[in-house]
Amino acid sequence: MTTKHLIAEINRKKSFLCIGLDVDLQKIPKHLLAEEDPIFSFNKAIIDATHHLAVAYKPNTAFYEAYGIKGWKSLEKTIEYLNANHPEIFTIADAKRGDIGNTSSMYAKAFFEDLAFDSVTVAPYMGKDSIEPFLAFEDKHTILLALTSNEGAFDFQTKNIDGIDGQELYKKVLKTSATWKNSKNLMYVVGATKAEYFADIRSIVPDSFLLVPGVGAQGGNLQDVCKYGMNANVGLLINSSRGIIYAGNDLQFDNAAATAAIELQQQMESILNAR
Amino acid sequence: MTTKHLIAEINRKKSFLCIGLDVDLQKIPKHLLAEEDPIFSFNKAIIDATHHLAVAYKPNTAFYEAYGIKGWKSLEKTIEYLNANHPEIFTIADAKRGDIGNTSSMYAKAFFEDLAFDSVTVAPYMGKDSIEPFLAFEDKHTILLALTSNEGAFDFQTKNIDGIDGQELYKKVLKTSATWKNSKNLMYVVGATKAEYFADIRSIVPDSFLLVPGVGAQGGNLQDVCKYGMNANVGLLINSSRGIIYAGNDLQFDNAAATAAIELQQQMESILNAR
Repeated sequence: MTTKHLIAEINRKKSFLCIGLDVDLQKIPKHLLAEEDPIFSFNKAIIDATHHLAVAYKPNTAFYEAYGIKGWKSLEKTIEYLNANHPEIFTIADAKRGDIGNTSSMYAKAFFEDLAFDSVTVAPYMGKDSIEPFLAFEDKHTILLALTSNEGAFDFQTKNIDGIDGQELYKKVLKTSATWKNSKNLMYVVGATKAEYFADIRSIVPDSFLLVPGVGAQGGNLQDVCKYGMNANVGLLINSSRGIIYAGNDLQFDNAAATAAIELQQQMESILNAR
Repeated sequence: MTTKHLIAEINRKKSFLCIGLDVDLQKIPKHLLAEEDPIFSFNKAIIDATHHLAVAYKPNTAFYEAYGIKGWKSLEKTIEYLNANHPEIFTIADAKRGDIGNTSSMYAKAFFEDLAFDSVTVAPYMGKDSIEPFLAFEDKHTILLALTSNEGAFDFQTKNIDGIDGQELYKKVLKTSATWKNSKNLMYVVGATKAEYFADIRSIVPDSFLLVPGVGAQGGNLQDVCKYGMNANVGLLINSSRGIIYAGNDLQFDNAAATAAIELQQQMESILNAR
């Protein structure tokens, strides 16, 4: 999917909501466990109930790998279902991959070609040649971890790098990655728990889309993120996982998810209308 | 597997060789493509021919994910084959994972419980709470990326962090990770292409095992790595992937792999005997 297409969808739906499909068999409604593929059944119901409210879905691969081949099948069915029924939806494989060049090419092939995701999240630690194989794919998007929403983000990401005239590591990641080949295909993960950082981030990457986890369960505030992080093309995908998919836990779990999604979508609509 | 057990195997086999099972269908002997599971057939033949020469095997998950569910099955069969027939072998899932706490727990479950690997490689960018869920597993080993063997290692890893009195990022990763809960379960990835760094690294983590890629195809030198990196318990696992598994490309590919492995093992035996 092109960025232009994504922006058009955001404006059409008045939403920049991304729903995280982090499916844990211990947390989904019990009645689904009798299904042949409970994870896919759960995802399908969530997608059917919320696809008009969200512009993106983001399965985190950890939750699928934890169930081995069965989990990988559920992931495959989920992305196939999305691509077949909702080609207007932007899909994100939240995989946080990254390896030396020829190996990263295999990951890029796995997520962009075989699974046909629109985008994949990647980790920056191994540098340029670990990311460029992803960037080589036309109309696919590589979402680089910059500033994450967890406590451990303060261990390295916010530490000053490059000596006395330096900057925080995550800023160095933003600046350096902008020099890589096909960097126009980059987006960035920036956690919502640190809304005050968004102004600085926007001065470095004014045009890039930012994928923002941490609204809701992790404590981030939507208004603050938009105040500092939104650009002329919106430029934000706000992710909510647990707050939406586990909003209910009975036969009407999909309705509960839709209610939680509507709440966020309406806040987003207000913000978009107020611009 | 305990570290004690690994050290005993190194001394018994006079080898600290790890063989990387990075299987690309375009590179394996053509006659294997007629098999039901060419990747597993290839791995089984390589393992059968080399298990007496190596103490560890390291499939890189990218090469399996690139083939979707089929690839995941090949990975599952490979680890099952190793665990059933060679329980004395140390197994490494080269997955370079890492995510926020509850998500990293899912990855740890996938690799330590479901696939029953002895160890998994992880990326440090997201800090403490992204790694500690892996460290919580008894007698399992978490191999943290410190200094990788690729060109991109110089983008961030070797940059000075923490201001004027600082240190390179990879040293900060080594020092900080040593303070994490159950850090005794940590090993580190240190690329062989930078042998001169090993002395510094040993001053920070004198007792830890180091997994060393980059000998052979990537240009690293075994003698230099051992000179600066070996400790009283050897403390090194030297990985070779392409140099061994693609040493031959005909019906005798397994013999060719064994010949390449013997060459490295004999160099290692000389080094161990000369101590």
